[in-house]
Amino acid sequence: MEGQIRILGFAGSLRSGSYNRALLRAAAELIPEKASLEIFDLERIPPFNQDLENAMPEKVREFKSKIRAADAVLIVTPEYNYSVPGVLKNAIDWASRPYGDSVWPGKPVALMSASTGMLGGSRAQYHLRQSFIFLDVLAVTKPEVFVTFAAQKFDDKGKLIDESTRKVVRDLLNTLTNLAQNKNQ
Amino acid sequence: MEGQIRILGFAGSLRSGSYNRALLRAAAELIPEKASLEIFDLERIPPFNQDLENAMPEKVREFKSKIRAADAVLIVTPEYNYSVPGVLKNAIDWASRPYGDSVWPGKPVALMSASTGMLGGSRAQYHLRQSFIFLDVLAVTKPEVFVTFAAQKFDDKGKLIDESTRKVVRDLLNTLTNLAQNKNQ
Amino acid sequence: MEGQIRILGFAGSLRSGSYNRALLRAAAELIPEKASLEIFDLERIPPFNQDLENAMPEKVREFKSKIRAADAVLIVTPEYNYSVPGVLKNAIDWASRPYGDSVWPGKPVALMSASTGMLGGSRAQYHLRQSFIFLDVLAVTKPEVFVTFAAQKFDDKGKLIDESTRKVVRDLLNTLTNLAQNKNQ
Amino acid sequence: MEGQIRILGFAGSLRSGSYNRALLRAAAELIPEKASLEIFDLERIPPFNQDLENAMPEKVREFKSKIRAADAVLIVTPEYNYSVPGVLKNAIDWASRPYGDSVWPGKPVALMSASTGMLGGSRAQYHLRQSFIFLDVLAVTKPEVFVTFAAQKFDDKGKLIDESTRKVVRDLLNTLTNLAQNKNQ
Repeated sequence: MEGQIRILGFAGSLRSGSYNRALLRAAAELIPEKASLEIFDLERIPPFNQDLENAMPEKVREFKSKIRAADAVLIVTPEYNYSVPGVLKNAIDWASRPYGDSVWPGKPVALMSASTGMLGGSRAQYHLRQSFIFLDVLAVTKPEVFVTFAAQKFDDKGKLIDESTRKVVRDLLNTLTNLAQNKNQ
Repeated sequence: MEGQIRILGFAGSLRSGSYNRALLRAAAELIPEKASLEIFDLERIPPFNQDLENAMPEKVREFKSKIRAADAVLIVTPEYNYSVPGVLKNAIDWASRPYGDSVWPGKPVALMSASTGMLGGSRAQYHLRQSFIFLDVLAVTKPEVFVTFAAQKFDDKGKLIDESTRKVVRDLLNTLTNLAQNKNQ
Repeated sequence: MEGQIRILGFAGSLRSGSYNRALLRAAAELIPEKASLEIFDLERIPPFNQDLENAMPEKVREFKSKIRAADAVLIVTPEYNYSVPGVLKNAIDWASRPYGDSVWPGKPVALMSASTGMLGGSRAQYHLRQSFIFLDVLAVTKPEVFVTFAAQKFDDKGKLIDESTRKVVRDLLNTLTNLAQNKNQ
Repeated sequence: MEGQIRILGFAGSLRSGSYNRALLRAAAELIPEKASLEIFDLERIPPFNQDLENAMPEKVREFKSKIRAADAVLIVTPEYNYSVPGVLKNAIDWASRPYGDSVWPGKPVALMSASTGMLGGSRAQYHLRQSFIFLDVLAVTKPEVFVTFAAQKFDDKGKLIDESTRKVVRDLLNTLTNLAQNKNQ
């Protein structure tokens, strides 16, 4: 296990049957051998309040320390109202604070999204990429993973069964792992 | 008071000393005579979870019913990480759900933002405007209110003292009020 | 023909076999009875140069006067490099100048796009919608027409044969026509 | 001169008195010793037409070969109608074509913009950054150079006289030069 690339993954939906959570579980299965994926649940991260940032809630402290310890981060985002879910942006906001103590600068990050519609969460991803400029992460740009018409690509148990989607998720994870590995060297 | 245009306003920051909250209080002071502004505090709106949307938290039910009862909505947004604060987007997400029960379609909405920097929250506003397409609100486009270098424009007690900013806020409120009035006729 | 709503349409691609030009021709066929569609070709609109804006090239003067005379505008945009084609943006830029003589304020405008890929030109449309804020057009927001995988939806002669696409184009044209009609009243 | 980093710069405005052209000339003056800046004029790059991309106009061939020969590119963009000028986007579109022969992949690129208003061209820059994802350039993200209220920062002869702007332009050029240098090694 030594030398393993540790990836922390989280999904922007709290719904138990969420396709985005299912996509994150698929990633855990498709991860390259030289990497491992730990899933973090955003539930119970409270609404950000800057007045509390010097006495951070326990759950936020845990989130930040897990991102810090990880070699790379995998963000799986639904699209709500043509943009990033508030729940996901709120977690990212917490992890960027307080000023000078952001976990993001230089962190390798990859993005995936799933939707039941035709645009696959792309509008949420491009908004996140604008945040990435300020956060100063090292973002993977290729491949872009937009899982469209998700209801056809997962089975009843939430397993990702679409072969071409499995392949592109694997490609994304390989790219992220290599980026993190090169950075560590 | 009969025939008054009722505006509901909320700010996307929970910080007590927030310039955006101060800007919202300034709006209450600058509101035209034929309108009234009620301020709603987003504190205690929990993270959105679609599994709960058919048994909405009390605070969310109150938020939705106040938007429904209002003739227009005033959103005051800080900019976090070059986009909309998670806290604000989360509230907007809740109010758009469940499917078929969104409070937003056709609602007159105006936007303002303040920041201590040079771009005045503009990046957050343009992301919100993309959400507005889906939400199907009736958005005011002129004037756009971006309060830059906010520390120079409010006094120690959080009172908006910059005359040209006061003027543009007044213009925005007039435009929003007239839009709501014309829609009601 | 009296009382007809006159729509001016143009496509952002100069390629003769362009799917976007084919989509514009389909619109001419699907236009509601009470409206007519004139197609304008952007070819020979030269690169914008502000030094020339007080002695506009003839082709630009013609473009501007046709937009002015129209009750509504239909813009069909390809997506180049995840944004608006330079050719299309250049034409829109000319028509907005010189300062104080823009043809755009209050003009009813609808958008369509086609691409051979999965996102149907959506990234170009959202960038155009940001320009629309400044241009102050009256933009149709529903339906949004994104023709994905265009190669499957047109026949060898460039005729739009996909029934559900024909329907949504018809819906868009009806919405645009009604918007223009209500504005004229 | 051996080992010099060669930067090609171009501005998205054709107006002779343009602040963005003046900003590009300032860059030529502020360039680090180990680099040189050649200015390319976009005038006479014709509107893109995919039918012509296998028999490219001479001016476009020259543009592409100069970008290819350069170690890095500096793009100076005005903001027209809240987005990228058509003229600039058109040049970038040509240089990305035909498919498989784009000059952009892996090219170090930096961005600057100037405007007479308060947002300094930022809206144009964020649209360009979305194009950069597809173009696969190696984009500098820090510092971001937005020259606001440009009329106060240049003298009558178009010389950049604002000290803090001169400093941030110098920082950007250093960052771009170092990025190109590290890539070449």
